[in-house]
Amino acid sequence: DDPLVIAGRSFGSRLIMGTGGAPSLRVLSEALRASGTELTTVAMRRVDPNAEGSVWDVLRENAISPLPNTAGCFTAVDALRTARLGREALETDWVKLEVVADERTLLPDPVETLDAAERLVDDGFTVLAYTNDDPVLARRLEQVGCAAVMPLGAPIGSGMGIRNPHNIELIVEEARVPVILDAGIGTASDAALAMELGCDAVLLATAVTRAQDPVLMAHAMREAVTAGRRARLAGRIPVRRYAHASSPARES
Amino acid sequence: DDPLVIAGRSFGSRLIMGTGGAPSLRVLSEALRASGTELTTVAMRRVDPNAEGSVWDVLRENAISPLPNTAGCFTAVDALRTARLGREALETDWVKLEVVADERTLLPDPVETLDAAERLVDDGFTVLAYTNDDPVLARRLEQVGCAAVMPLGAPIGSGMGIRNPHNIELIVEEARVPVILDAGIGTASDAALAMELGCDAVLLATAVTRAQDPVLMAHAMREAVTAGRRARLAGRIPVRRYAHASSPARES
Amino acid sequence: DDPLVIAGRSFGSRLIMGTGGAPSLRVLSEALRASGTELTTVAMRRVDPNAEGSVWDVLRENAISPLPNTAGCFTAVDALRTARLGREALETDWVKLEVVADERTLLPDPVETLDAAERLVDDGFTVLAYTNDDPVLARRLEQVGCAAVMPLGAPIGSGMGIRNPHNIELIVEEARVPVILDAGIGTASDAALAMELGCDAVLLATAVTRAQDPVLMAHAMREAVTAGRRARLAGRIPVRRYAHASSPARES
Amino acid sequence: DDPLVIAGRSFGSRLIMGTGGAPSLRVLSEALRASGTELTTVAMRRVDPNAEGSVWDVLRENAISPLPNTAGCFTAVDALRTARLGREALETDWVKLEVVADERTLLPDPVETLDAAERLVDDGFTVLAYTNDDPVLARRLEQVGCAAVMPLGAPIGSGMGIRNPHNIELIVEEARVPVILDAGIGTASDAALAMELGCDAVLLATAVTRAQDPVLMAHAMREAVTAGRRARLAGRIPVRRYAHASSPARES
Repeated sequence: DDPLVIAGRSFGSRLIMGTGGAPSLRVLSEALRASGTELTTVAMRRVDPNAEGSVWDVLRENAISPLPNTAGCFTAVDALRTARLGREALETDWVKLEVVADERTLLPDPVETLDAAERLVDDGFTVLAYTNDDPVLARRLEQVGCAAVMPLGAPIGSGMGIRNPHNIELIVEEARVPVILDAGIGTASDAALAMELGCDAVLLATAVTRAQDPVLMAHAMREAVTAGRRARLAGRIPVRRYAHASSPARES
Repeated sequence: DDPLVIAGRSFGSRLIMGTGGAPSLRVLSEALRASGTELTTVAMRRVDPNAEGSVWDVLRENAISPLPNTAGCFTAVDALRTARLGREALETDWVKLEVVADERTLLPDPVETLDAAERLVDDGFTVLAYTNDDPVLARRLEQVGCAAVMPLGAPIGSGMGIRNPHNIELIVEEARVPVILDAGIGTASDAALAMELGCDAVLLATAVTRAQDPVLMAHAMREAVTAGRRARLAGRIPVRRYAHASSPARES
Repeated sequence: DDPLVIAGRSFGSRLIMGTGGAPSLRVLSEALRASGTELTTVAMRRVDPNAEGSVWDVLRENAISPLPNTAGCFTAVDALRTARLGREALETDWVKLEVVADERTLLPDPVETLDAAERLVDDGFTVLAYTNDDPVLARRLEQVGCAAVMPLGAPIGSGMGIRNPHNIELIVEEARVPVILDAGIGTASDAALAMELGCDAVLLATAVTRAQDPVLMAHAMREAVTAGRRARLAGRIPVRRYAHASSPARES
Repeated sequence: DDPLVIAGRSFGSRLIMGTGGAPSLRVLSEALRASGTELTTVAMRRVDPNAEGSVWDVLRENAISPLPNTAGCFTAVDALRTARLGREALETDWVKLEVVADERTLLPDPVETLDAAERLVDDGFTVLAYTNDDPVLARRLEQVGCAAVMPLGAPIGSGMGIRNPHNIELIVEEARVPVILDAGIGTASDAALAMELGCDAVLLATAVTRAQDPVLMAHAMREAVTAGRRARLAGRIPVRRYAHASSPARES
């Protein structure tokens, strides 16, 4: 299978995990392992990289690369400061940029996000930018140098799936950097659909960590992402209103 | 993983395949193998079980049980005759009952189907009945003794997916026999969704056999069915309009 | 505007009302008047046509024809008895046939409905048959002589709208008797959509009678039905993915 | 009925029309009259206000206020220039701001739009801003002083309806200026839905001007907007999975 390539780095898994919401570090560790992920976001504002018995140990044990994110930031300035903290602490210039507009919806702020992306790129970061599902903003983020664009399917934590598949398709059609569906995934079919629409990867957290059985759901998501990827590559049958009337070999 | 049990028989795979539409026997054989299926429908009206180089060889080679179907029948009488042919030829009393109303839509005829089901059960058959997505008819089919009910997601060959998930959920809620989503599946996420709605298995043919790459799509469907099953068992997060406003550990 | 013609009788209004669920006879009367309806169903099993201050007075005052229905019947035999009661009491051989399968879902029973329809037609009734959204059953009901078929949009009282527009379109394509969308309507856009799909009329009750302001909602439904009808006749623009790239006169 | 109030000005009609795409001035005139609109957008870049036999005459004859728009602008600077032209020519400081990102999708450019909105407000304009369906951008546009926000339902001219009703609801929940659904409307039920979601008005053009019968469709849209508005105010029934099991007075 073809690997996911972001900014020249290859990943065998197209499922990127988040770490929030897990009931315990032990469950998180098992779920991450079951998911097969090779890249996992960690919020720099919430985690002390030097703490013992921390999420860092979990990632180290499972040989998963941490992807520091700027969750909890509301302005470009704030995101820049947080990203630099992550770079120093984790010795990586990769960052998942996330600038949200308010605590209630956690929707990305398009203006601050674009501003932050531009500054982070200038500062040498490899920026994976969380964004709404606007094809125009996705294009702009790519133009300022983001290494990946990460449109939402629905608000973070909503589990609503992909509210506007048409927009995701428009983003995929144009993008020349990886498109990673981020936020809104609730269950396996949502993740499969993201890949069928042409996304290069899926990022999710609470759909796994807050499922009743996180480890089993992690397993399901791993398969769903692969299934959706393969279905995309396999070239699905067209949608039509009925069967071919003339099909002599029809049989279901 | 828990097996699928139909009429006392256990299956490790929850993906039932059909054989129609494949470009060649070789591709069919590879696709069936990739799908992991253990049970595959064959139309008795279209296939000579004694022919050499036939679909029967393909099933034998892959140790897949044939499930004779009555595709191409328009009346209960016709279906009964065809089912008996299958029983003699294949030495199985299992039958996938399919009585369609016309060539154009290939939609199941509810009256003839129910009539045929009753007669077939009386005649000692183990009947898996293809039906529309009406919860009341599904209940009736179970009441007359069908071993499984097989509601459609959409018309055969349409690739439209599951047009009315609510009806499938109603059928699943009540059924005490396996519910197998049959017809309409177009791509992997459709198959995953069927399982998430609580179906016990999925039956599909053209979504695989007429995909641009049937073998790759078979692989995708296999994973999608497993993913959907696991997601169902794992207990998905509820759908809500936004994130928990108060979530201190929020992180995507 | 072209009238709705059922069994040779013409109606200026394409909105048929039900009477159940109204908070009071006074509100019902005002809502019926606001709806502009000329035909209104009344359950024969629940109403005494001789009672004073009854729904009958309301219809009489508003010059609305009563359409007796067989709500509350679970078998063909029951429906036949109830229909005859209505005929005697109201001196009309019109009947809205409704045979449901259970109290919980109130879904129509396809087998009993078809059986009852046949008997009622034989007995000289003009039968408007409530049915599920199965195109094959709709065709059968027409074949046994129903004057109109009345597919559901969704379960009675659910307010879910039209769950499977594709099926409604299939029914409309084939029908040579009026198709009346019955059950499931929740709000005005649902009623408009029914007409846009090609239905000849809409029947609804609780969407109006249980709205917070039944009279205002009746008004809305009246307009929605007309709007949907006109939009159907006006020939809507096709759905496309974007604007004409080359449109010189583009302007929104 | 309560009027629509934008920037202190009242309108009896909640349907704002565009003028593009009409087959002739005569048809446009009839369609505008049938729509009942009191406010109609005209593209300043495409129309010469002094031309005879022009769209201006049509508006004058029908006593419709022109709302100059900046269609065809790709940058804030361009929009500003165009808006000023409109102000001089039409002696109105109202402007429908429209800055699109490209000719193919005609999607609004969020960054340029916000920039233009700010400048136009500073320059004394009353700005009605066309925007994507992002609740955060809508909030920003309100914050910089827009008199109305005009989220799209789908791309201009696509006729896809409202792709993401959830976003429109989020915008409506927060907005303290009128929300006008703009772009994407294909048929009457789309317009009704926009109003049911809580929009204060609907703007459309090609759904009417390019319908097979523009005048009839204009009529339909007029009713649909009123129907949707009334349905919103009437307080629709909740969506539930079945009827009340216990409802004694059930009747459809």
